[in-house]
Amino acid sequence: MSSTTSFVQPDHRLTLIPGPIEFSNPVLAAMSTPSQAHTSPEFIATFQSVLKNLRKLFKSTNPKTQAYVLSGSGTLGWDIAASNLLTAGDDVLVLSTGFFSDSFADCLRIYGAEVDVVTAKVGDVVPLDQVKAKLSEKSYKAITITHVDTSTSVVSDVEAISKLVKQVSPETLIIVDGVCSIGVEDLEFDQWGIDFVLTASQKAIGVPAGLSILYASERALDIALNKKETTYFASLKRWTPVMQSYESGKGAYFATPAIQTITALRASLDEILSEPLDARFAKHEQVSTEFKNAVNKLGLQILPVSRDVAAHGLSAVYFPEGIDGNELLKKLAQKGFTVAGGIHKQLVGKYFRVGHMGYSVYAGHIPAFTKALEESLKELK
Amino acid sequence: MSSTTSFVQPDHRLTLIPGPIEFSNPVLAAMSTPSQAHTSPEFIATFQSVLKNLRKLFKSTNPKTQAYVLSGSGTLGWDIAASNLLTAGDDVLVLSTGFFSDSFADCLRIYGAEVDVVTAKVGDVVPLDQVKAKLSEKSYKAITITHVDTSTSVVSDVEAISKLVKQVSPETLIIVDGVCSIGVEDLEFDQWGIDFVLTASQKAIGVPAGLSILYASERALDIALNKKETTYFASLKRWTPVMQSYESGKGAYFATPAIQTITALRASLDEILSEPLDARFAKHEQVSTEFKNAVNKLGLQILPVSRDVAAHGLSAVYFPEGIDGNELLKKLAQKGFTVAGGIHKQLVGKYFRVGHMGYSVYAGHIPAFTKALEESLKELK
Repeated sequence: MSSTTSFVQPDHRLTLIPGPIEFSNPVLAAMSTPSQAHTSPEFIATFQSVLKNLRKLFKSTNPKTQAYVLSGSGTLGWDIAASNLLTAGDDVLVLSTGFFSDSFADCLRIYGAEVDVVTAKVGDVVPLDQVKAKLSEKSYKAITITHVDTSTSVVSDVEAISKLVKQVSPETLIIVDGVCSIGVEDLEFDQWGIDFVLTASQKAIGVPAGLSILYASERALDIALNKKETTYFASLKRWTPVMQSYESGKGAYFATPAIQTITALRASLDEILSEPLDARFAKHEQVSTEFKNAVNKLGLQILPVSRDVAAHGLSAVYFPEGIDGNELLKKLAQKGFTVAGGIHKQLVGKYFRVGHMGYSVYAGHIPAFTKALEESLKELK
Repeated sequence: MSSTTSFVQPDHRLTLIPGPIEFSNPVLAAMSTPSQAHTSPEFIATFQSVLKNLRKLFKSTNPKTQAYVLSGSGTLGWDIAASNLLTAGDDVLVLSTGFFSDSFADCLRIYGAEVDVVTAKVGDVVPLDQVKAKLSEKSYKAITITHVDTSTSVVSDVEAISKLVKQVSPETLIIVDGVCSIGVEDLEFDQWGIDFVLTASQKAIGVPAGLSILYASERALDIALNKKETTYFASLKRWTPVMQSYESGKGAYFATPAIQTITALRASLDEILSEPLDARFAKHEQVSTEFKNAVNKLGLQILPVSRDVAAHGLSAVYFPEGIDGNELLKKLAQKGFTVAGGIHKQLVGKYFRVGHMGYSVYAGHIPAFTKALEESLKELK
């Protein structure tokens, strides 16, 4: 990666939305890696490193699990789960903590799943006793958990839900939407008995958008590899031998991989794994807590009903009474920070969202933003 | 794009495979654009420029056509065509000029299409009278044409085939796989009455892999927008309002776009459209002819049965008698050039493929490669 050494980012407004996040210099430099063939020794080494390191990111040691990196986005991961793990008519239990959980349910229905959605109170998780009641009522082929719903910043307790599933309905596949969680919230794939996680590059994984990243259990693979295909590009039957080949150090072809973005993923995974994962999670928790404390001190309230269900990679914060939300976002932009409006349909216009994941957490962007928020609020009063 | 000014590519082996191709410095520099929100004014301006310029690339002036840019690859374009334009049971006529035409047929079958494949002689196109006979026999919902099949380097006459379809079976949708043609072979979307073209970023469009680029006619859109969805991420119903919104200068969301790669696409389209398209096509034809002449002069033969059916963006060349193909590819790599082996199943190991598209055509890489080829052949004799 000889092109990376002198790379410096020009001044720009800091992107503190809950994804895409800010990217480190080595990651951005890797994006401009000169052309390589998809079967060149250079790219094979890159993709091999990525696939091996994804095992570490998912804390998986079982060699029968499999990581996948496809050109796409988090959304494509829903199609991949639906088309590879489910058959039309299958019952699926969706735990909804916001907009993205509901959209996942929409996707599942398109593939013919019979979906039951249990919706949490806004800002809260689905209570475990409700999950237990639903699982006892019907034999579900799968349950979906949105680890962190980016619309509400609510984090679900995947470990506790998985434990419950194993007790009440062990045959139910556990599918986790980890788009806004992988790389910032703990997820122990093997230990918790997860079957499938879908995520994307542009959030806590710290790489520009364009990659759909997936992780499948032996049980999930067994289903996917023995199922009649209903899609082509999204078919794990097509991709499994390709990923196995690259991971073993040999090139293979089904569709051309996004060489530059995968090279950036290599750089990011190298950075992420340069410290113990648990230290990374603790760092995010610390910065998240400091930011939420500062926000409260400024008289603002977060959307989640309690800190216990508040994610660590972003904060959803209500606009204060008497302040025009759009004016606040404009002020913040003038001060050099892009944050996001709220998208939960019941609360649009009432809150904003600040991402604090990856590079920004390490580069000190969050205290700088907190200062800008304090100044902006003063100026608008 | 203030990050681009000092960008210089380090020395590297030139990638002269038929995609991914070599990328220009402005394109690679745009890949490392610092983070922008997908709804930031900067990215909206970028995406708007891309969508407007794609109309020019497809020589379309009808405002009711629509361009799409999704995270994905050329292969995803097959799924998009199949799932948005066809219904299970539809009859489709596939004109096969190689591996990629056949793979497209595989994809269509997965979505339930009844596929008739007319296969050309290896290295040739499907004769027009055979196309006419098939179209007269059955009422096809769609015909697929692989404009350039990258496995054989054969270019089909999309204009003549389209004219025939309009005469014999005007209700048949004309679907073109333009992965290895758009940006190097002429395609007049409106004029020829094409309904759908799928292509990708990493060939003559000159941008790193990771984008599925599509262009739909009013008639195709009418079908796609009124059809029951069978996929979610690939659904043009979901993407059409998003593309219309960005093209009109407003942000929208369905799935996070690949901001950096789309910014690179903007840079590449700016370069491509800085000269008249027909001048670009003529330049490619000239370099292609010079290369094929040189190859013949060295005693080597191209795979297509005649120059009339040989594409201008790549050359498929038989290894000469008495020379080990792998040794030749190794020699070329030592001299700084990566070319591709052959992948047509009847001819694997018997030929190699050289891409001459985009940046390499303008940067003088092809004469340099020709020299290396000549030297390598001498050394191996």
